[in-house]
Amino acid sequence: MIYLDNAATTPLAPEVLEVMTKTARENFGNPSSIHKLGREARVKVEEARSKIASYLHAIPAEIIFTSSGTEAINLVLNGCVYDLGIKNIITTPLEHPAVLNTLKYIGTKTQLNINFVNIGNRGKIKMDSLDALLKTYPESLVVLMHANNEIGNMIELDEVSNLCKNYNSLFLADTVQTIGKFKHDFLKTPVDFACCSAHKIHGTKGVGFLYLKSSINMSPLIFGGGQERNMRAGTENISGITGMAKAMELAYDNLSKNQTYIRSLKSYMVSLLKENIKDIKFNGECEDKGLYTVLNVSFPKSKKSELLLFNLDIAGIAASGGSACHSGDESISYVLQNIGSDPKRTSIRFSFSRYNTREEIDVCVREIVKIIND
Amino acid sequence: MIYLDNAATTPLAPEVLEVMTKTARENFGNPSSIHKLGREARVKVEEARSKIASYLHAIPAEIIFTSSGTEAINLVLNGCVYDLGIKNIITTPLEHPAVLNTLKYIGTKTQLNINFVNIGNRGKIKMDSLDALLKTYPESLVVLMHANNEIGNMIELDEVSNLCKNYNSLFLADTVQTIGKFKHDFLKTPVDFACCSAHKIHGTKGVGFLYLKSSINMSPLIFGGGQERNMRAGTENISGITGMAKAMELAYDNLSKNQTYIRSLKSYMVSLLKENIKDIKFNGECEDKGLYTVLNVSFPKSKKSELLLFNLDIAGIAASGGSACHSGDESISYVLQNIGSDPKRTSIRFSFSRYNTREEIDVCVREIVKIIND
Repeated sequence: MIYLDNAATTPLAPEVLEVMTKTARENFGNPSSIHKLGREARVKVEEARSKIASYLHAIPAEIIFTSSGTEAINLVLNGCVYDLGIKNIITTPLEHPAVLNTLKYIGTKTQLNINFVNIGNRGKIKMDSLDALLKTYPESLVVLMHANNEIGNMIELDEVSNLCKNYNSLFLADTVQTIGKFKHDFLKTPVDFACCSAHKIHGTKGVGFLYLKSSINMSPLIFGGGQERNMRAGTENISGITGMAKAMELAYDNLSKNQTYIRSLKSYMVSLLKENIKDIKFNGECEDKGLYTVLNVSFPKSKKSELLLFNLDIAGIAASGGSACHSGDESISYVLQNIGSDPKRTSIRFSFSRYNTREEIDVCVREIVKIIND
Repeated sequence: MIYLDNAATTPLAPEVLEVMTKTARENFGNPSSIHKLGREARVKVEEARSKIASYLHAIPAEIIFTSSGTEAINLVLNGCVYDLGIKNIITTPLEHPAVLNTLKYIGTKTQLNINFVNIGNRGKIKMDSLDALLKTYPESLVVLMHANNEIGNMIELDEVSNLCKNYNSLFLADTVQTIGKFKHDFLKTPVDFACCSAHKIHGTKGVGFLYLKSSINMSPLIFGGGQERNMRAGTENISGITGMAKAMELAYDNLSKNQTYIRSLKSYMVSLLKENIKDIKFNGECEDKGLYTVLNVSFPKSKKSELLLFNLDIAGIAASGGSACHSGDESISYVLQNIGSDPKRTSIRFSFSRYNTREEIDVCVREIVKIIND
């Protein structure tokens, strides 16, 4: 199996599995228990929190463990609207369903003014439109993906977060696709909220975190025991959390090496595709810019191209037609629709990790060519 | 280490760890992906759902995977109030913080009438009080623990759920302490909601489920992708979920054997304590009735008894002064306070699992006697 769907989820790193197994065996205590086993479990959770915080230049107390990036986003959106009284949201139609569907629901329960930033050529977010919206609606919450999960388009976190600050607005950076893939310094970059899902960086599913700037006070989404400094109730997923800290370590201790390597895989695939297929295009800004792990390819329409994704699957190559969260759905990706991609062409997202090889790219492009010319 | 704090959390069963590790290695696909790895992961999740449902005589669609029992409870309380428009809650002050704190918060945001059922001798819930409240407030939501986590008091699920039905009220049975420990038949027992936390039954932390009767339509707590039939967004914790199904299998395939064995440990400890310590008492109904895994012992006051829990910890015996969710807190357990336990005496909860032995009970009681008489 050649796995080129790493934006949907990634294979668990063996080192992460090792940590998780060790924790599960040795630290099964409830971190809230005051006996030795409980205290040992508590230490493991807090060590993981400190380690993760250090990679992001955050204070440990700013890291709130959640069950997913989606939960982290829900926590922020609910807290901002119901606790902080925010009435205006500024976002784009290209965000993840965790943002769009949560806002839609909150909008049915409360007066919420949701404003969409204009999208330009190749899905680029128009900064002048964001500026104009912030001018009209100061004290908003701005929600933008740092890197789009389908087309890989990126925003400048520093620029956006400083702009938000100028207009006294809060900024949730959806960093699910970029934590572990870029250096983040939340001391310098004034984002108020950011989020991570461990399974996007070779951690396990069912664990993630919210970065919550220490100056912000809001209520949790899930109430109960006093876990996570009263910000998220429920017994801590110690195995998942210690595994996530290991996944962060593996990502950040080898960051430039991984970046260079994965970038080279992507460029290699771009050049192979261009050499071998006429009229190949790329959606969004992923060809030359954007997230180095994502390549969203637009194939010329043909009878063969329509079933390309299915035939690749049969050939043992895993890729995606859109984001996994919507891929059960047969309709065209809402992201591609919103950036004006030609619906007659076939789009496939290939997404890479450090576990992929040039040989896999060779096989993949060879299979694509074979399927299209068959 | 002798671990007698199984109501707080349980050691992971080796068979569960094996399943989890296998899943993590072989089924890392995103269940929402349509390629082979995704479909295989989807099959694993749905197999787990069917297996769990079968033990409870539920329809698979009635099992909603969550990150914890706490999350399941939050989902129900929010859904009932905000979606189903329920205005009256009937509960007790002995419930878990996941119930009490969530209700308290919702009460700050909306008009919510929270009614407490009268508590009788030894913490017994007065059924005539419940009946009277239901008569006054039909179309309520009743929230009661099937078994109290601190004192082990149990309610009759059939009696309560039928009573709720008579008054057109919904019933959330907090079954966190009883799933995997008793047979549940949700075809016969008309509860509307029930919940489970895997780590209470030798599964892992960070996964649980909500039983949601199929006739009830409510919104999720966490929005985003269409996972869990649109009832709970976020990529599925496949490892945790398959592990939880294994934990359920281990629990239910050996249910009467485990029940008999654990009951015998508890009775043995009761008799040893009575033989060796004068004026020993038991909180709630745990001495003779109630949950067979929980024994809440009340020791006569002495200088030594005050530090009993700490000295047991030093001697390598893990037990608890209250529920883990509150044990960081030095104040007396609110459950014991509410049932009128003598605050001058020292209370310790011992809770058992199938992994405990008679020899461990021998050592534990010997240590208790040594500490008290030292």
